[in-house]
Amino acid sequence: MLKSLSFLVVAILFMSCCDASAKKDKAGVVQPIEVGQPERPAGQEDVVGLTTPKLDTVRVGFIGLGMRGPGAVERFTHIPGTKVVALCDIRPECVERSQNILKNAGLPEAAAYSGSEDAWKQLCERDDIDLVYIATDWVHHAQMGVYAMEHGKHVAIEVPAAMTLDEIWSLINTSEKTRKHCMQLENCVYDFFELTTLNMAQQGLFGDILHVEGAYIHNLEDFWPYYWNNWRMDYNRKHRGDVYATHGMGPACQLLNIHRGDRMKYLVSMDTKAVNGPEYIKKTTGEEVKDFQNGDQTTTIIRTENGKTMLIQHNVMTPRPYSRMYQLVGTDGFASKYPIAEYCLRPAQVDANDVPNHENLNAHGAVPENVKKALMEKYKHPIHRELEETAKKVGGHGGMDFIMDYRLVYCLRNGLPLDMDVYDLAEWCSMAELTRISIENNSAPVAVPDFTRGGWQKLDGYHHAFAE
Amino acid sequence: MLKSLSFLVVAILFMSCCDASAKKDKAGVVQPIEVGQPERPAGQEDVVGLTTPKLDTVRVGFIGLGMRGPGAVERFTHIPGTKVVALCDIRPECVERSQNILKNAGLPEAAAYSGSEDAWKQLCERDDIDLVYIATDWVHHAQMGVYAMEHGKHVAIEVPAAMTLDEIWSLINTSEKTRKHCMQLENCVYDFFELTTLNMAQQGLFGDILHVEGAYIHNLEDFWPYYWNNWRMDYNRKHRGDVYATHGMGPACQLLNIHRGDRMKYLVSMDTKAVNGPEYIKKTTGEEVKDFQNGDQTTTIIRTENGKTMLIQHNVMTPRPYSRMYQLVGTDGFASKYPIAEYCLRPAQVDANDVPNHENLNAHGAVPENVKKALMEKYKHPIHRELEETAKKVGGHGGMDFIMDYRLVYCLRNGLPLDMDVYDLAEWCSMAELTRISIENNSAPVAVPDFTRGGWQKLDGYHHAFAE
Repeated sequence: MLKSLSFLVVAILFMSCCDASAKKDKAGVVQPIEVGQPERPAGQEDVVGLTTPKLDTVRVGFIGLGMRGPGAVERFTHIPGTKVVALCDIRPECVERSQNILKNAGLPEAAAYSGSEDAWKQLCERDDIDLVYIATDWVHHAQMGVYAMEHGKHVAIEVPAAMTLDEIWSLINTSEKTRKHCMQLENCVYDFFELTTLNMAQQGLFGDILHVEGAYIHNLEDFWPYYWNNWRMDYNRKHRGDVYATHGMGPACQLLNIHRGDRMKYLVSMDTKAVNGPEYIKKTTGEEVKDFQNGDQTTTIIRTENGKTMLIQHNVMTPRPYSRMYQLVGTDGFASKYPIAEYCLRPAQVDANDVPNHENLNAHGAVPENVKKALMEKYKHPIHRELEETAKKVGGHGGMDFIMDYRLVYCLRNGLPLDMDVYDLAEWCSMAELTRISIENNSAPVAVPDFTRGGWQKLDGYHHAFAE
Repeated sequence: MLKSLSFLVVAILFMSCCDASAKKDKAGVVQPIEVGQPERPAGQEDVVGLTTPKLDTVRVGFIGLGMRGPGAVERFTHIPGTKVVALCDIRPECVERSQNILKNAGLPEAAAYSGSEDAWKQLCERDDIDLVYIATDWVHHAQMGVYAMEHGKHVAIEVPAAMTLDEIWSLINTSEKTRKHCMQLENCVYDFFELTTLNMAQQGLFGDILHVEGAYIHNLEDFWPYYWNNWRMDYNRKHRGDVYATHGMGPACQLLNIHRGDRMKYLVSMDTKAVNGPEYIKKTTGEEVKDFQNGDQTTTIIRTENGKTMLIQHNVMTPRPYSRMYQLVGTDGFASKYPIAEYCLRPAQVDANDVPNHENLNAHGAVPENVKKALMEKYKHPIHRELEETAKKVGGHGGMDFIMDYRLVYCLRNGLPLDMDVYDLAEWCSMAELTRISIENNSAPVAVPDFTRGGWQKLDGYHHAFAE
């Protein structure tokens, strides 16, 4: 009920969606399509840099124990200062499987919720939970997040945490109103190369960073049969645009300090025709789909207020090596992760004592392997330095899942701002709807809303918080 | 005189440039900016598939003997059936240097033209030349090409052959009127990986090709001092947009059969702010340039009539490894050249007898090195098969310059269509002005003119011509 009300308010505030499209200014310059932006409810403030009271133990309830949930439960059994209080999935056997994870770790059984469509609400309504951890299919994420916050819980939501601008504004408004954290569980920002390179970037090695790239390029043809009720292919069938942008957006936005001194201003997006999606459906069901929406590959470029650009791609349909296309172009250096990890740096950017073969550094080619190794050791991020060994043991996408969960708990226990706030969630997830609007308008530019509603210059650069 | 007249006509025909910008259709969909298109002059036909009478000996005159010209003269001394008749450069010492190349090859001295601003016109006016080969700075290319064709010569023009839409239409109209070949000297389409992969693509290994990428990413910081009168930095200072797109466009357009069954429909482009260009000028001259036009990196995406996409980048300003970003994404396979050459193919696309380790092929990763080698051997392009050894000996960008010149002469001698026609030139060069218009309109979509004016579906796919 509260949830529906919240969505309604947002919908009403959404006054002029797309009405202002393709206007020209007085000088005749074409202006981006404006999607509108709801007014901040009276008496509400932004949650930039939000902190909440320290928690000695983080008591957590999990919703969604299919593909990603059980791994999260498993990881929490390794994180000190946590207690798994409740488990929820519509399928009782999934709850049972996660109970076994607790049992095998020598931990008490959790309260179980399943069987009904709204069992998850009862979990949210408990009064002995601090954090609701949501790993369901995409379309249930946002409403669960809103409901959990309305019931006084912090929330952590798997990617993408929201699929529409309405959902995004609901999460923002609810987080601002309840002063609860709303974090998207974007794990790729914790991967080794990304975090090391972010550290190098923050120390100035690449000069001014002008352009970044990111992507989700993952041929899912062998994975389609394993999604519950075929929901993911179905989502692609019905939705055009970059529907799964966060793995590319996360590291890219952190490099550019998005809503910490810079902001995304407008984007343009373009897709190929859809071939392999409808082909898969035809092959597996015999159905001829004539209106399959999601193109096999989607490409988006974004410009920021400070004159930087971002390139984001999405392709889950065609045979290709996996790639998140992580790349940065700076005035003094370059980094790229796929298909091979490379750095290119002006010699002046690197202390000769820090690396071998300093005389071979140049502004035209990648540094040799031994220099790369030395740089990555020297600039290893403090988070990796602390957690490397444990993360490797616990696992989960090479340890980055563990680091993500650990950091979430660490910040909650220490009363620190989380590594990712609700505006990160908004910016990264807004790609789904904004790219669709651009594509449906012959790739016309679409303005990216300022989800902070004025707060994007409060912080000076992106930083991870640490306890004294 | 003829030249100026020709430009004037085009300018008059250019009625509604950019006036139709950002209109919406009846359904409210934003439409691309239209740049207009001159009517084809009465009595004139397109030159799609143009052939001209066989030439026993191709008699050539060279204009521009600075950076690229002397290498071309040298290469022509190795190509049978050619005669270097005349040499022209504004600097007499440059002509002298190329005379020495002829002398060292045991060939007779050529007629020399230099010293005056229009010495090149006298070369074009000779009646014993079949082909004028132009390798001057960018801004003189088009007018020289027009003048040479008006005087009955085929022309081959270095990249970019034209910098504006006016220049492009002049070259098209003149080629159509005079029925003379007008080829752009784009060498990258002859590089080994590109031509091999094109051959694989034409044989269907990648399925339907949905997306291609190309770029000119070359940090020129050590080269700037060597351009005559600093013309290249000056050009970047004064012009926004992708001013040097042809090296990326050429291979990409050939893969997509552009104007041989498909055509580019519209593009969007975005650049970063300009930092390293103005910084270089400040460092070398002390001048503070506040209005430097060319962003350090420019990104463009293009959509075709058949629902394919292209991604094109330009960066000559920042420290990065060299890359032309050659990449193709097909429904059944993938190829990529930088930073390492990779193929990914469904096993069904490759005959098990053709490669080792066929059981290891999959739709998720690059084929092993020995499979790649076997594929590249099997699909070596006939042109490479014929010219490989000679090309390596003669050199010039790894042999691709030699192959380019050789093919030009071969087609002229055999009365065949050239590998690249004036519409290729137009499409690849049009990026400079079209991307600028997009960028100056907040990345609004800009329609790509149909330079064939209706002839883009006459040919079924891109093919190299061979004599019986």
